[in-house]
Amino acid sequence: MTATFVHVYVKPEFIQAFIEVTRVNHEHSVKEPGNLRFDILQDAKDPGKFVLYEAYETEEQAAAHKGTAHYLKWRDAVASWMSKPREGLKHALLYPASN
Amino acid sequence: MTATFVHVYVKPEFIQAFIEVTRVNHEHSVKEPGNLRFDILQDAKDPGKFVLYEAYETEEQAAAHKGTAHYLKWRDAVASWMSKPREGLKHALLYPASN
Repeated sequence: MTATFVHVYVKPEFIQAFIEVTRVNHEHSVKEPGNLRFDILQDAKDPGKFVLYEAYETEEQAAAHKGTAHYLKWRDAVASWMSKPREGLKHALLYPASN
Repeated sequence: MTATFVHVYVKPEFIQAFIEVTRVNHEHSVKEPGNLRFDILQDAKDPGKFVLYEAYETEEQAAAHKGTAHYLKWRDAVASWMSKPREGLKHALLYPASN
Protein backbone atom coordinates (compact mmCIF):
# COMPACT_ATOMS: atom_id res chain seq x y z
CA MET A 1 0.00 0.00 0.00
CA THR A 2 1.22 3.45 -0.87
CA ALA A 3 0.87 6.77 0.91
CA THR A 4 1.85 10.37 0.34
CA PHE A 5 2.17 13.22 2.78
CA VAL A 6 1.44 16.44 0.93
CA HIS A 7 2.74 19.46 2.81
CA VAL A 8 0.84 22.63 1.94
CA TYR A 9 1.69 26.15 3.05
CA VAL A 10 -1.26 28.54 2.86
CA LYS A 11 -1.27 32.34 3.03
CA PRO A 12 -3.07 33.51 6.19
CA GLU A 13 -5.92 35.23 4.39
CA PHE A 14 -6.84 32.04 2.52
CA ILE A 15 -6.76 29.52 5.39
CA GLN A 16 -10.53 29.26 5.81
CA ALA A 17 -11.13 29.06 2.08
CA PHE A 18 -8.44 26.38 1.80
CA ILE A 19 -10.07 24.29 4.54
CA GLU A 20 -13.42 24.51 2.78
CA VAL A 21 -12.27 23.45 -0.69
CA THR A 22 -10.04 20.77 0.79
CA ARG A 23 -13.03 19.36 2.71
CA VAL A 24 -14.85 18.97 -0.60
CA ASN A 25 -11.79 17.25 -2.11
CA HIS A 26 -11.68 14.93 0.94
CA GLU A 27 -15.34 13.99 0.60
CA HIS A 28 -14.90 12.93 -3.02
CA SER A 29 -11.47 11.34 -2.60
CA VAL A 30 -12.49 8.90 0.14
CA LYS A 31 -14.97 7.42 -2.36
CA GLU A 32 -12.28 6.66 -4.99
CA PRO A 33 -11.44 2.99 -5.70
CA GLY A 34 -8.70 1.77 -3.38
CA ASN A 35 -8.65 4.87 -1.19
CA LEU A 36 -7.64 4.05 2.39
CA ARG A 37 -6.95 7.50 3.84
CA PHE A 38 -7.51 11.08 2.82
CA ASP A 39 -6.93 12.87 6.10
CA ILE A 40 -6.62 16.66 6.36
CA LEU A 41 -4.39 17.90 9.16
CA GLN A 42 -3.54 21.39 10.38
CA ASP A 43 -0.30 22.07 12.22
CA ALA A 44 -0.92 22.84 15.91
CA LYS A 45 1.67 25.63 15.98
CA ASP A 46 1.23 27.15 12.51
CA PRO A 47 -2.38 27.32 11.22
CA GLY A 48 -1.12 27.97 7.68
CA LYS A 49 0.66 24.60 7.50
CA PHE A 50 -1.40 21.60 6.41
CA VAL A 51 -0.72 17.97 5.68
CA LEU A 52 -2.88 15.92 3.32
CA TYR A 53 -2.31 12.27 4.13
CA GLU A 54 -3.41 10.17 1.16
CA ALA A 55 -3.19 6.36 1.10
CA TYR A 56 -4.26 3.90 -1.59
CA GLU A 57 -4.10 0.17 -2.08
CA THR A 58 -2.05 0.51 -5.29
CA GLU A 59 0.20 3.02 -7.07
CA GLU A 60 -2.21 3.02 -10.01
CA GLN A 61 -5.11 4.07 -7.78
CA ALA A 62 -3.00 6.82 -6.19
CA ALA A 63 -2.03 8.08 -9.66
CA ALA A 64 -5.66 8.00 -10.82
CA HIS A 65 -6.52 10.55 -8.09
CA LYS A 66 -4.67 13.23 -10.07
CA GLY A 67 -6.98 12.70 -13.03
CA THR A 68 -10.22 13.16 -11.13
CA ALA A 69 -12.42 16.21 -11.58
CA HIS A 70 -12.41 16.94 -7.84
CA TYR A 71 -8.59 16.88 -7.66
CA LEU A 72 -8.24 19.19 -10.66
CA LYS A 73 -10.83 21.57 -9.25
CA TRP A 74 -8.98 21.62 -5.88
CA ARG A 75 -5.59 22.10 -7.54
CA ASP A 76 -6.77 25.10 -9.54
CA ALA A 77 -8.68 26.64 -6.63
CA VAL A 78 -5.75 26.59 -4.21
CA ALA A 79 -2.95 27.43 -6.65
CA SER A 80 -2.79 31.13 -5.81
CA TRP A 81 -3.39 30.59 -2.06
CA MET A 82 -0.08 28.88 -1.33
CA SER A 83 2.85 30.79 0.11
CA LYS A 84 5.26 28.29 -1.49
CA PRO A 85 4.97 25.16 -3.65
CA ARG A 86 3.54 22.12 -1.95
CA GLU A 87 5.67 19.01 -1.43
CA GLY A 88 4.60 15.36 -1.70
CA LEU A 89 6.57 12.73 0.20
CA LYS A 90 5.97 9.13 -0.87
CA HIS A 91 5.86 6.34 1.69
CA ALA A 92 5.00 2.69 1.98
CA LEU A 93 2.09 2.10 4.36
CA LEU A 94 3.27 -0.93 6.37
CA TYR A 95 0.55 -1.11 9.03
CA PRO A 96 -2.37 -1.49 9.01
CA ALA A 97 -1.45 -4.24 6.56
CA SER A 98 -3.60 -5.20 3.60
CA ASN A 99 -5.98 -8.09 4.13
CA MET B 1 -9.49 15.35 17.09
CA THR B 2 -5.77 15.35 17.62
CA ALA B 3 -2.96 13.75 15.66
CA THR B 4 0.80 13.47 15.88
CA PHE B 5 3.35 12.63 13.22
CA VAL B 6 6.30 10.96 14.92
CA HIS B 7 9.39 11.02 12.71
CA VAL B 8 11.79 8.21 13.56
CA TYR B 9 15.27 7.73 12.13
CA VAL B 10 16.53 4.15 12.45
CA LYS B 11 20.07 2.82 12.04
CA PRO B 12 20.25 0.52 8.99
CA GLU B 13 21.09 -2.62 10.94
CA PHE B 14 17.97 -2.26 13.09
CA ILE B 15 15.36 -1.50 10.41
CA GLN B 16 13.81 -4.97 10.37
CA ALA B 17 13.78 -5.22 14.16
CA PHE B 18 12.19 -1.76 14.34
CA ILE B 19 9.43 -2.76 11.94
CA GLU B 20 8.66 -5.86 13.98
CA VAL B 21 8.41 -4.18 17.41
CA THR B 22 6.50 -1.26 15.88
CA ARG B 23 4.00 -3.70 14.36
CA VAL B 24 3.33 -5.05 17.87
CA ASN B 25 2.89 -1.49 19.18
CA HIS B 26 0.47 -0.80 16.30
CA GLU B 27 -1.61 -3.89 17.06
CA HIS B 28 -2.10 -2.86 20.68
CA SER B 29 -2.48 0.86 20.03
CA VAL B 30 -5.37 0.55 17.59
CA LYS B 31 -7.35 -1.08 20.40
CA GLU B 32 -6.91 1.88 22.79
CA PRO B 33 -9.99 3.97 23.68
CA GLY B 34 -10.44 6.79 21.18
CA ASN B 35 -7.73 5.64 18.80
CA LEU B 36 -8.51 6.62 15.19
CA ARG B 37 -5.18 5.98 13.45
CA PHE B 38 -1.91 4.30 14.29
CA ASP B 39 -0.36 3.99 10.85
CA ILE B 40 3.26 2.97 10.31
CA LEU B 41 4.91 4.44 7.21
CA GLN B 42 8.34 3.96 5.69
CA ASP B 43 9.90 6.63 3.48
CA ALA B 44 10.04 5.53 -0.16
CA LYS B 45 13.53 6.99 -0.67
CA ASP B 46 15.15 6.28 2.71
CA PRO B 47 14.21 2.94 4.34
CA GLY B 48 15.59 4.15 7.69
CA LYS B 49 13.04 6.98 7.91
CA PHE B 50 9.66 6.16 9.40
CA VAL B 51 6.54 8.10 10.31
CA LEU B 52 4.13 6.94 13.00
CA TYR B 53 0.81 8.68 12.39
CA GLU B 54 -1.23 8.56 15.59
CA ALA B 55 -4.71 10.08 15.89
CA TYR B 56 -7.13 10.10 18.83
CA GLU B 57 -10.51 11.57 19.55
CA THR B 58 -9.19 13.59 22.52
CA GLU B 59 -5.91 14.95 23.88
CA GLU B 60 -6.42 12.90 27.04
CA GLN B 61 -6.64 9.68 25.05
CA ALA B 62 -3.52 10.60 23.08
CA ALA B 63 -1.67 11.31 26.32
CA ALA B 64 -2.84 8.01 27.84
CA HIS B 65 -1.02 6.14 25.05
CA LYS B 66 2.30 7.09 26.64
CA GLY B 67 1.32 5.32 29.84
CA THR B 68 0.48 2.00 28.25
CA ALA B 69 2.63 -1.09 28.71
CA HIS B 70 2.96 -1.57 24.94
CA TYR B 71 4.17 2.00 24.41
CA LEU B 72 6.75 1.74 27.20
CA LYS B 73 7.98 -1.60 25.87
CA TRP B 74 8.31 -0.12 22.36
CA ARG B 75 10.05 3.02 23.64
CA ASP B 76 12.66 1.03 25.52
CA ALA B 77 13.17 -1.49 22.70
CA VAL B 78 13.88 1.11 20.02
CA ALA B 79 15.85 3.61 22.12
CA SER B 80 19.28 2.43 21.01
CA TRP B 81 18.21 1.79 17.40
CA MET B 82 17.67 5.43 16.47
CA SER B 83 20.28 7.44 14.62
CA LYS B 84 18.91 10.65 16.15
CA PRO B 85 16.10 11.61 18.54
CA ARG B 86 12.61 11.19 17.19
CA GLU B 87 10.34 14.20 16.67
CA GLY B 88 6.61 14.48 17.29
CA LEU B 89 4.61 17.10 15.39
CA LYS B 90 1.14 17.84 16.76
CA HIS B 91 -1.76 18.53 14.42
CA ALA B 92 -5.49 18.95 14.47
CA LEU B 93 -7.26 16.26 12.43
CA LEU B 94 -9.89 18.27 10.53
CA TYR B 95 -11.25 15.58 8.17
CA PRO B 96 -12.57 12.99 8.51
CA ALA B 97 -14.59 14.95 11.04
CA SER B 98 -15.93 13.48 14.26
CA ASN B 99 -19.46 12.18 14.15
